[in-house]
Amino acid sequence: MEEANNKESPYISSILPGWFSEISPLWPGEAHSLKVEKILFQGKSDYQNVMVFQSSTYGKVLILDGVIQLTERDECAYQEMITHLPLCSIPNPKKVLVIGGGDGGVLREVSRHSSVEQIDICEIDKMVIDVSKQFFPNVAIGYEDPRVKLHVGDGVAFLKFVAEGTYDAVIVDSSDPIGPAQELFEKPFFESVARALRPGGVVCTQAESIWLHMHIIEDIVANCRQIFKGSVNYAWTTVPTYPSGVIGFMLCSTEGPAVDFKNPINPVDADDSHTKTRGPLKFYNSEIHSASFCLPSFAKRVIESKGK
Amino acid sequence: MEEANNKESPYISSILPGWFSEISPLWPGEAHSLKVEKILFQGKSDYQNVMVFQSSTYGKVLILDGVIQLTERDECAYQEMITHLPLCSIPNPKKVLVIGGGDGGVLREVSRHSSVEQIDICEIDKMVIDVSKQFFPNVAIGYEDPRVKLHVGDGVAFLKFVAEGTYDAVIVDSSDPIGPAQELFEKPFFESVARALRPGGVVCTQAESIWLHMHIIEDIVANCRQIFKGSVNYAWTTVPTYPSGVIGFMLCSTEGPAVDFKNPINPVDADDSHTKTRGPLKFYNSEIHSASFCLPSFAKRVIESKGK
Repeated sequence: MEEANNKESPYISSILPGWFSEISPLWPGEAHSLKVEKILFQGKSDYQNVMVFQSSTYGKVLILDGVIQLTERDECAYQEMITHLPLCSIPNPKKVLVIGGGDGGVLREVSRHSSVEQIDICEIDKMVIDVSKQFFPNVAIGYEDPRVKLHVGDGVAFLKFVAEGTYDAVIVDSSDPIGPAQELFEKPFFESVARALRPGGVVCTQAESIWLHMHIIEDIVANCRQIFKGSVNYAWTTVPTYPSGVIGFMLCSTEGPAVDFKNPINPVDADDSHTKTRGPLKFYNSEIHSASFCLPSFAKRVIESKGK
Repeated sequence: MEEANNKESPYISSILPGWFSEISPLWPGEAHSLKVEKILFQGKSDYQNVMVFQSSTYGKVLILDGVIQLTERDECAYQEMITHLPLCSIPNPKKVLVIGGGDGGVLREVSRHSSVEQIDICEIDKMVIDVSKQFFPNVAIGYEDPRVKLHVGDGVAFLKFVAEGTYDAVIVDSSDPIGPAQELFEKPFFESVARALRPGGVVCTQAESIWLHMHIIEDIVANCRQIFKGSVNYAWTTVPTYPSGVIGFMLCSTEGPAVDFKNPINPVDADDSHTKTRGPLKFYNSEIHSASFCLPSFAKRVIESKGK
C-alpha cells in the first residue's frame, strides 16, 4: 500500500483549497464538498484511485475514483438499509453473498442475523479491503465474523462458478455504473444473480438516486422485471454525503415462496444480542423498512410504468 | 429592486469560481455547490441579502443570506410536503395562514384544496415576493388565487392581532433560525400559533435536518409538547439542495378533535381538478405522507425521549 504523502491529489480540488469536491458527469452542475483535515492515504489500485482523508465534521472518508463511498458519520444509513431490507424480508436467511462491499460494512450488518451460517463476499479490489481494515475498523469489523469467507475477484466471474440456487440472499454493494462496477448494472449480471438464488431468494442492489438517475433506474427496473419472476421493488433512503442526498435499492425475488418486501417478517431489531459486539442499529428499524418503499409521485409514475 | 449586475457577490465563493457554494456555521465542514450560468438578481432588503441565479442543472435558484431557499428542480418536494402534510390530515380546512413562504410556493399548494376559503400569508420581506414574481412564475403563481390575502410584515406581530381560534391550519415556511426567522423557532411564537388555531387545528413548521440539527429539533419538540395538547409529530423528506439532503417538519395539533397525522383523511390527490391550472403533484401522495413520519432509529430515540 502506498503511504499517505503530501503529493497533490487529483481529487482535492484546486478550486476549493483544503476541501474535497465531488465532481462527476453523473451529477453535472453540482458538487458536494467536505473540508479536509488531513489526507491519510492515497493509492492507485489495479482498478481505481483510492483515497482516505480525515474530514472536519464527517469523520474519516473513503473516496474511490473521486466519489465518496462512505463517511464515518453517515455510513450507518446505507449499510443498514442495503443489508436489512433484503434479510429482514425472508425467514431464516442462511447463505448470503455480498458482491462488492469491500469496506466490510455490509458484512458487519449481515452478521447481526443469527440465522446466517455462511457469508461469502466477492470484492474485486484488495486495496479497498486493506484500506478499510487500516482506517475504518468499525466498518471492517465485519470481516472478523468467522462465518465470512472472502473471495478477492470479479463478482461476475465468481457467480459463474456458483451452483444454481445456492444463496438465500445476494447483496450487491457496488459503486456507480462508471468504472469497475459497470457490469453490475447490466442484464447478464442480473441473470447470474437470479441463477445463484434459491427459489424465493432475494437480491438487493445499489440503485442510484431518484433525483439524478431516473433513466438508469428505469433500465434497471425493466431488466429486473424480465429476470426476477417473484417481486420487483424500488426502495430509497437518505445518505447526506451521496449525491442528491439519497440512494436507492432494487429489491427482487426469484420465483418461489412469495416475498413481500414492504412488510418485513424477520426483524433484526427484535433480537439485540448482536448489539453487544457491533453496537446498536443506528438507522434501520421495521417502520423505516416499510416506509422506504414509498416513492415520490414523479418516481412512482416512472417505476410503475415499467411494470406494464 | 436593484438590478442584476457584475459586482462580486459575497456568496459566489471566490474559491470556486463560477459556482455558488453554500457555506454556513449551521453545517460546518461541508458545502453544496451549484454551477452558476448567470446571476439574474442581487439585492439587499431590509432583512437579508437576496440573490437569484440561473444554474446549469437545477434551473433558477433563490438564495437568501447565502442559503439556498429553492431551486426550480426540487422545490416541489418541500412545498408539497410542508403544505399537504397538515392540510391532508384534517377534514375540510377552510382558513389557512402561511407565515413566511414569500416565494408563493406554499400558496400554490394550499390552493389545490377546494375546501379552503381564505388563505392569509404574512411574509416579512417584500423583496422576496417581488423577486419570486419576477423570476419564479411557476412558484409565485400561488399569489394569483383570489382566496389569497397578502400581509407584508412580521409574522410574530401579525399573530397578536389574530382572533383566538381563527385558523384551521398554520404553515410556517421559514428560513433557518439564524437571521430574520429566529423568533419563529422560539416558544412565544408557538404559543401565538396555538392561540390562533381552532381546537383540533394544525400547524406545520419547517424543522431542520435530523442529520445536522438534532439539538435544535430536540428543543422544538420539547417546546411543542408543552404547548400543543393534541398530537406532536416529526416528519421529514428529501430535498437534494437542502443541507444533508433532507428537511424536517413539526406537525402539531391543538386540543380538540383528535388529529392522526400519520393517516391522512383528506387526500388532495383524489381530486385532480387543481391539476388543470397548477399541474399535477410531482412529489406528494398519501403513501409518502404516512412514510414521512417514520424516523431513523437515531432520530426516533431522541424525539421520543422528549415526549417522556
